[in-house]
Amino acid sequence: MAYKAPVRDLTFILNEVLEIDRYTNQPGFTDVSSDLVQQILEEGAKFAEEVIAPINHSGDKEGCHWSEGGVVTGPKGWKEAYQAMVEAGWPALTADPAYGGQGMPSIVGSAFGQFTAGASAAFSMYPGLTAGAYAGIHANASEELKAKYLPRMATGEWSGTMNLTEPQCGTDLGMVRTKAVPNGDGSYSITGQKIWISAGEHDFSENIIHTVLARVEGAVPGIKGLSLFLVPKYLVNEDGSLGERNTLECTGLEHKMGIHGNATAVMQYEGAKGWLIGEEGRGMNNMFVVMNEARLGTGLQGLAIGSAAYQAAVEFANDRLQGRSLTGPKNPDGPADSILVHPDVRRMLLEARAFVEGGQAFILWTALQADLEKSDDEATAQKAKDYMGLLTPVLKAYLTDKGFHVASLAMQVHGGSGYTEHFQASQYLRDARITMIYEGTNGIQALDLVGRKLPGNGGRAIMSWFADIDAFVAENGAEGPIKPYVEGLADAKKKLQEGTMWLMQNGMQNPDNAAAASTDYLHLFGLTALAYLWAQMAKAAQAKIDAGSDDPFYVAKLQTGRYFLERILPDTHGHLVKMKTGADVLMAMPAEAF
Amino acid sequence: MAYKAPVRDLTFILNEVLEIDRYTNQPGFTDVSSDLVQQILEEGAKFAEEVIAPINHSGDKEGCHWSEGGVVTGPKGWKEAYQAMVEAGWPALTADPAYGGQGMPSIVGSAFGQFTAGASAAFSMYPGLTAGAYAGIHANASEELKAKYLPRMATGEWSGTMNLTEPQCGTDLGMVRTKAVPNGDGSYSITGQKIWISAGEHDFSENIIHTVLARVEGAVPGIKGLSLFLVPKYLVNEDGSLGERNTLECTGLEHKMGIHGNATAVMQYEGAKGWLIGEEGRGMNNMFVVMNEARLGTGLQGLAIGSAAYQAAVEFANDRLQGRSLTGPKNPDGPADSILVHPDVRRMLLEARAFVEGGQAFILWTALQADLEKSDDEATAQKAKDYMGLLTPVLKAYLTDKGFHVASLAMQVHGGSGYTEHFQASQYLRDARITMIYEGTNGIQALDLVGRKLPGNGGRAIMSWFADIDAFVAENGAEGPIKPYVEGLADAKKKLQEGTMWLMQNGMQNPDNAAAASTDYLHLFGLTALAYLWAQMAKAAQAKIDAGSDDPFYVAKLQTGRYFLERILPDTHGHLVKMKTGADVLMAMPAEAF
Repeated sequence: MAYKAPVRDLTFILNEVLEIDRYTNQPGFTDVSSDLVQQILEEGAKFAEEVIAPINHSGDKEGCHWSEGGVVTGPKGWKEAYQAMVEAGWPALTADPAYGGQGMPSIVGSAFGQFTAGASAAFSMYPGLTAGAYAGIHANASEELKAKYLPRMATGEWSGTMNLTEPQCGTDLGMVRTKAVPNGDGSYSITGQKIWISAGEHDFSENIIHTVLARVEGAVPGIKGLSLFLVPKYLVNEDGSLGERNTLECTGLEHKMGIHGNATAVMQYEGAKGWLIGEEGRGMNNMFVVMNEARLGTGLQGLAIGSAAYQAAVEFANDRLQGRSLTGPKNPDGPADSILVHPDVRRMLLEARAFVEGGQAFILWTALQADLEKSDDEATAQKAKDYMGLLTPVLKAYLTDKGFHVASLAMQVHGGSGYTEHFQASQYLRDARITMIYEGTNGIQALDLVGRKLPGNGGRAIMSWFADIDAFVAENGAEGPIKPYVEGLADAKKKLQEGTMWLMQNGMQNPDNAAAASTDYLHLFGLTALAYLWAQMAKAAQAKIDAGSDDPFYVAKLQTGRYFLERILPDTHGHLVKMKTGADVLMAMPAEAF
Repeated sequence: MAYKAPVRDLTFILNEVLEIDRYTNQPGFTDVSSDLVQQILEEGAKFAEEVIAPINHSGDKEGCHWSEGGVVTGPKGWKEAYQAMVEAGWPALTADPAYGGQGMPSIVGSAFGQFTAGASAAFSMYPGLTAGAYAGIHANASEELKAKYLPRMATGEWSGTMNLTEPQCGTDLGMVRTKAVPNGDGSYSITGQKIWISAGEHDFSENIIHTVLARVEGAVPGIKGLSLFLVPKYLVNEDGSLGERNTLECTGLEHKMGIHGNATAVMQYEGAKGWLIGEEGRGMNNMFVVMNEARLGTGLQGLAIGSAAYQAAVEFANDRLQGRSLTGPKNPDGPADSILVHPDVRRMLLEARAFVEGGQAFILWTALQADLEKSDDEATAQKAKDYMGLLTPVLKAYLTDKGFHVASLAMQVHGGSGYTEHFQASQYLRDARITMIYEGTNGIQALDLVGRKLPGNGGRAIMSWFADIDAFVAENGAEGPIKPYVEGLADAKKKLQEGTMWLMQNGMQNPDNAAAASTDYLHLFGLTALAYLWAQMAKAAQAKIDAGSDDPFYVAKLQTGRYFLERILPDTHGHLVKMKTGADVLMAMPAEAF
């Protein structure tokens, strides 16, 4: 199975749905045209298909290797692929030109990111974590640290990590024990153990720049006592050359269900030298910059794995001859029809595809908000920032839940073959599962949504988003072939609004009501967001057809959107009913009865 | 994590809900009392917990070993556990006393089966496949074959298998190529390759009795040319001793995502000696006897894995201290509260539990029908047979879908820990996934339901089942604490009836309409079946409370049922809406557009 990067689907969204050529007046877009983006994505697709995809399955089978002294090597061919990526300049795509980056907008990086994550989720985590660490340093570190570290991180010559979790704490980082003691020269000595550090140790890059959450000696307990540190694997001399090895070591790798090609390290810091990123006691705030970036990246990853799994399922379905169509043979000269004649196989494929294509649009739309946040126009920037805040948890949790669901559908299309490790369906399923957990479990995303993002600024973000949807509905819903898509959106939005009102009325009285409703509310939100993007895609596709295009791409887009509308969107009802049941049904049972 | 067999839950269903003491007038129940069943289940629980459960996780890590010449050995300790099971007499529990069995009713076997499958799904497949092969031989083979093979299969000294699949055919068995040539002495020479043969080769038992689907030379092509053969690994002498090795060999094992402890064999038959089971050309009919048994067993297996996964999640949630309750600390002296204080964690646990406990009841109710099929009273037997036919595909597909869903919820409760292979959550998820595929994919079950089981005998089975539900509703729904449970059931049944009408009206015109609706219809059916059993459980629990019991077990039962009612059952709406969309939304897309 050869992975094909979904260039056409994404350029459709970029150029025909979001119309990125409209944004040349926005910072970052000055030199960006749809033609240039097309070129970049075609090159990026080639790289993902030819360099990354071929090592994905073998990397899953082989995994990473740890040896005494904390030396970690990746699967065969992975170091070479990483270095080819660095040479081709891909890691610098969206990095700040002030620090060696190419300065392309997030939306372009987000399209390329879907290709690499689809080609190999485990591989894409090496540059992905680097981008996260880069963002954290870029946002908050001193100019000196930035000048010293960012240019080599931008190129990927040095990679990066995020060190948060410890054995006793993952979600509840207030319990972090890793200690930082000031050395008196501006540096700190970091001591403690961090676990589940993705890309934490390997030999792909010359240096690894860890961003580490730790507590300065004497700081207050809990979240407010935490600070963020930059801790390099090799100390860096004044001239930028690598100095002595820092006193940190990978003491083991986790054995995981999937993403075997990525080294999930246990990191031991023994008085390792580190430097403060931003201010003392602001560690969590600084980390949130990294985490938001990582959450979008995780949603993207889950969906992209689903996209690759869908492709594999289509290929299998085309090749597999088994049984006959219920309405008469479709391949009368063959021993049987392809399983694509069976409605239930098509149900699985279309369900997968409707989530994948809707999710692709949701990701790019959100990435556009990340770009517009930097707008010089205050209102534009404010609105984009509001949307980013509101939709990040939805995107992360909804798209990873659905990415896993899609991978499971893709396995089901394979039948028994999918359960063997000979096909890639198993790897996609196993790889996708982690995305629902890391960077904040999906339950935590739901709490973040109802507890923080929704009520923030008096509900400004969601009110603005609802107004956008209302305007779209008013403009497009009256008549014509896309009317059903617009009506579906209007109905979903109405239910989401009802759910939002319920939360406001009941969550205030008792926060457990809000928490009890949170996951169903998030799914209702995700469905509405996808309905919004499907309506926009349907509008763009219909416009081409109306203008005389006979490209079957547009017809297929409308048909996939119709599946979403008729066979996925009805779930809004169930989520609304469930979220309104309140906390008592969950909290009444005493803990000891579980 | 020590697995605990759910004795209390199952004896509640057996004794208080289904009231098996009512059936002492039925064949097979003559010597069966609730006290005896209690004793058997307590012993069975001990065996599952102490002998089987301890080798489950290690067996997953080690897997099976194949070596040149087709020798297969299991993981460390598995052969010993198998032999302990044989010595304790468990395999013979429900076997026919005429052939060395203990003759206990299916319902008792089905309860014990939930314990072994929960303790180790992969291990339980060894006796499970033997039981399937036993059933096929028992139903259709000659008295001579039965006398020769069944007694040693009943004890488990000899194990059994089912050989259907070949590389070019799984679902579509009409394409089977394995050949049988009559030897002129009543035996046949079997030649061909069979794949995915669970428990196909191992050293646990003295002999392995394969049941093999093959085509007698010169027989018609397709399904009607197939016959079923008994092909032993070692030929059996007249005196019952083992003779020479038959010319069949395991040429390899599949590498699978889960159930690593079970040897999934590629079997090569090279003129192996076999004997016809039943008549020539009746292979598929004869195999269906085995397959129905196996389908119930697979539904049971999927659910039982979910049950074990739920337990592991509860244990983890109790131990894991992380964060604080939104309504104030519940463990103020500890570093954090247990995660059981969080509504969303409880949502996951209660969702898992509601499916597990509802599914347990569904399994035992269906097993009771298998027993009542043998009733001397014709009406009772007919009705039980109708119900078995109708509900087997629902039970298989719905409970395996939900078993996997429960295993995924259980992993989510574990957070990152669940994704590591250190905990068992990953094994449960990986093991559960196959149950949705084998013994007929869940899509095939849905087709069987709408295409065969539902319309059979003019819809007699479902009309009778609806009448039972109506009678239950009329009797119990008027007033009192169980009213909501009964109303929920009545509403689900109403929707299922509407869906059934839709199928009758639209499936006739175009069979693709029925196939397109099949999976949603099956889920609507599964929800209604669980609603029926939850209503019965609620009634039984409430009766105990009304009679003065203060056992918290009954309160917890009502609370779990309430979760099912309020937060699971609303999905009936979405399934009904989706199934009524018709085939066009699936079939309109041309094959090449996928």
